[in-house]
Amino acid sequence: GRESERIQLDGYFPLRSMQLLWLSLLPCLYLASLCSAEQGLEFPSFDGKDRVLHINERNYKKALKRFDMLCLLYHEPQPAHKGRQKQLQMTELVLELTAQVLEDKDIGFGMVDSQKDAKVAKKLGLEEEGSLYIFKDDRVIEFDGEFSADTLVEFLLDVLEDPVELISNPMELRAFERMEEDIRLIGYFKGEDSYYKAFQEASERFQPYIKFFATFDKTAKHLSLKMNEVNFYEPFMEEPAILPGRQLSEMEIVEFVHQHKRATLRKLRAEDMFETWEDNLDGIHIVAFAEEEDPDGYEFLEILKDVARDNTNNPELSIVWIDPDDFPLLTTYWEKTFKVNLFKPQIGVVNVTDADSVWLDMSNDEDLPTAEELEDWIEDVLSGKVNTEDDDDVKDDYDGVDREDGHHGDDHEDHGDYDDHDDSD
Amino acid sequence: GRESERIQLDGYFPLRSMQLLWLSLLPCLYLASLCSAEQGLEFPSFDGKDRVLHINERNYKKALKRFDMLCLLYHEPQPAHKGRQKQLQMTELVLELTAQVLEDKDIGFGMVDSQKDAKVAKKLGLEEEGSLYIFKDDRVIEFDGEFSADTLVEFLLDVLEDPVELISNPMELRAFERMEEDIRLIGYFKGEDSYYKAFQEASERFQPYIKFFATFDKTAKHLSLKMNEVNFYEPFMEEPAILPGRQLSEMEIVEFVHQHKRATLRKLRAEDMFETWEDNLDGIHIVAFAEEEDPDGYEFLEILKDVARDNTNNPELSIVWIDPDDFPLLTTYWEKTFKVNLFKPQIGVVNVTDADSVWLDMSNDEDLPTAEELEDWIEDVLSGKVNTEDDDDVKDDYDGVDREDGHHGDDHEDHGDYDDHDDSD
Repeated sequence: GRESERIQLDGYFPLRSMQLLWLSLLPCLYLASLCSAEQGLEFPSFDGKDRVLHINERNYKKALKRFDMLCLLYHEPQPAHKGRQKQLQMTELVLELTAQVLEDKDIGFGMVDSQKDAKVAKKLGLEEEGSLYIFKDDRVIEFDGEFSADTLVEFLLDVLEDPVELISNPMELRAFERMEEDIRLIGYFKGEDSYYKAFQEASERFQPYIKFFATFDKTAKHLSLKMNEVNFYEPFMEEPAILPGRQLSEMEIVEFVHQHKRATLRKLRAEDMFETWEDNLDGIHIVAFAEEEDPDGYEFLEILKDVARDNTNNPELSIVWIDPDDFPLLTTYWEKTFKVNLFKPQIGVVNVTDADSVWLDMSNDEDLPTAEELEDWIEDVLSGKVNTEDDDDVKDDYDGVDREDGHHGDDHEDHGDYDDHDDSD
Repeated sequence: GRESERIQLDGYFPLRSMQLLWLSLLPCLYLASLCSAEQGLEFPSFDGKDRVLHINERNYKKALKRFDMLCLLYHEPQPAHKGRQKQLQMTELVLELTAQVLEDKDIGFGMVDSQKDAKVAKKLGLEEEGSLYIFKDDRVIEFDGEFSADTLVEFLLDVLEDPVELISNPMELRAFERMEEDIRLIGYFKGEDSYYKAFQEASERFQPYIKFFATFDKTAKHLSLKMNEVNFYEPFMEEPAILPGRQLSEMEIVEFVHQHKRATLRKLRAEDMFETWEDNLDGIHIVAFAEEEDPDGYEFLEILKDVARDNTNNPELSIVWIDPDDFPLLTTYWEKTFKVNLFKPQIGVVNVTDADSVWLDMSNDEDLPTAEELEDWIEDVLSGKVNTEDDDDVKDDYDGVDREDGHHGDDHEDHGDYDDHDDSD
């Protein structure tokens, strides 16, 4: 029963068969088994069939009804610039390949033009150009990650899974405990009662970015969870934040997650990398590069975790950890842009407006900084003593752009302790 | 000094500017940051510049001399079939993007036609069409993995690193101990003496597939390593095999690795997936699917590890573990081909000749099989009692192909215990 269904609906206008004459700017990965008589590892290649719909006022309701899940790419209007046109077509093609790979999963795919289809976009609540919006049941999930078929397929398969995973034995609990990179919640419930339902409803709002687990049995005792209590684990933290069990409601959980979700140390993930990058503090990110698979990188990461644990209550601090192994195509770009060697661990401050950056000097080959030294440096960053602007007169051409944007330590609202910092260089 | 050097050499004939008019079968991933004014996460797109060389008798020596590393794709002759032509061109394009991304690393890229350039191929020792051969110093590394820019770039960056990593403190040792998925060796040496040199020379022959570590200090005591001793860790095994330190030579180490390198439980990796798949036992693989990030998957994997540890001395047994998360584009293909649900752990026997397969029934929702039950099933597989052919008369059309190929349990040499098994169905 896994044979693909032919999608054919009145009122649907599949995008015109794509004329792929224009791919000379191709940022493209080929997936092939070039070799071998062996079977069992055949990567898919696009079969040329149009599966992505052009969504408009006449067909959007039908599309929403037709599929279990509908994925709409909200995109800029057809650009005049040729390079951008090609980009848009490539994006469409990624969506086509994704649609092909997931053909049997009853997922619809469509494109919404932010200009031509402005009305529909408004009705559907689409806001950010370049984002993919996933409609599932009565909720909307925004995807703002790496737009590759790999990442998209994995993401959508995650969305298809149950939003709450049950933990029912010590081995599964160990699996839960090992997921230190992720934000995760675990609740202890009598069974599928109203409290559990509230937990489940809340989970749907964060799927698949934040993981929800539940247990109905004594496994909970290992976590010293009381009945109807929920534990919230920030990434890399050993102690959870606790949501008390009395009158646990969906909204209470949702609120709690929103309050805690910007972690002190968070790993950059392909599936929400742009969202994470947008969530900077006053235009600044503290970025740490460390390969977890590398002994040096692992050691540095352990030091970082110590620092994060010591400072978990500082809302000013959120370090983005990037494992270069997760982003091979960006590694040399980062090396050029930030002028660092990524074969070694690095930590620095990046101004996301102009990608200007300064990096902690760790050139002393053998010794990584201690947690204390790292905390001192971070303090200097937060106070503005270390910043991306001081050396600009020397190294960069001043481009005349208002440099206010790039300042960190410019938080006016929450933290009186950090004065407005005005470069006096 | 990171500015790209313009490659320009007499005798080099870059491939003609690629006419990309033919990409309608495009198996392609687009990588773009569609969104955002923010800087710092710009995925590369192919800039259209030809960097991949056409290698022939006149230029191959120069190319070998010119670069620190030279990567040659040994490919089939220009095919008559249009689809295959496009495949070959896409492959070229992946190589172009890889060359662009690694522009500053002094790596050369070239194509060698197995027909037109047969002489050069012979001189260089190229044998398997579709493989990429990397020439570094006086050795050759064969890449037979997923041919995507992502995987290639990561692979080549690994090849650029030192083949031996030094372990110099307890934290780095912990990093080493955590790498249970990989084959890794660790040696204890006085310093960079002749024993260490032998170890290093050996490491170069396996880089980057097998990891080599060394320590010069007391860290070794934790591993109870004696001076000049080398420990070999099979994936997922707690106890190492020991190479005694007396008269340790390069060849001794190399031989030892070759003897031990087919692991009882091995994880399928993008960088050598086709090689692993080719290394089947009589046309058969025992394949286990398990998502490590999933509690169920994790639990099943722990059971598998137990089984592997119990049977590590059985040369007949090598289970290929596939984490579907590592191969999103193959997941639905596998679900269709093998008729299994990959949201759950699965274990089965796959005939690599025709991708026919049988799977252990684990439909009882809550309980995974115990290690004992799994061992019983594996025994049935190895004895031929469970095999991919028995049900063929019912399910498949018999295609007239000699079915001998597909038999397992047909090992005539090492294991008299497993009789030739002739289906009497």
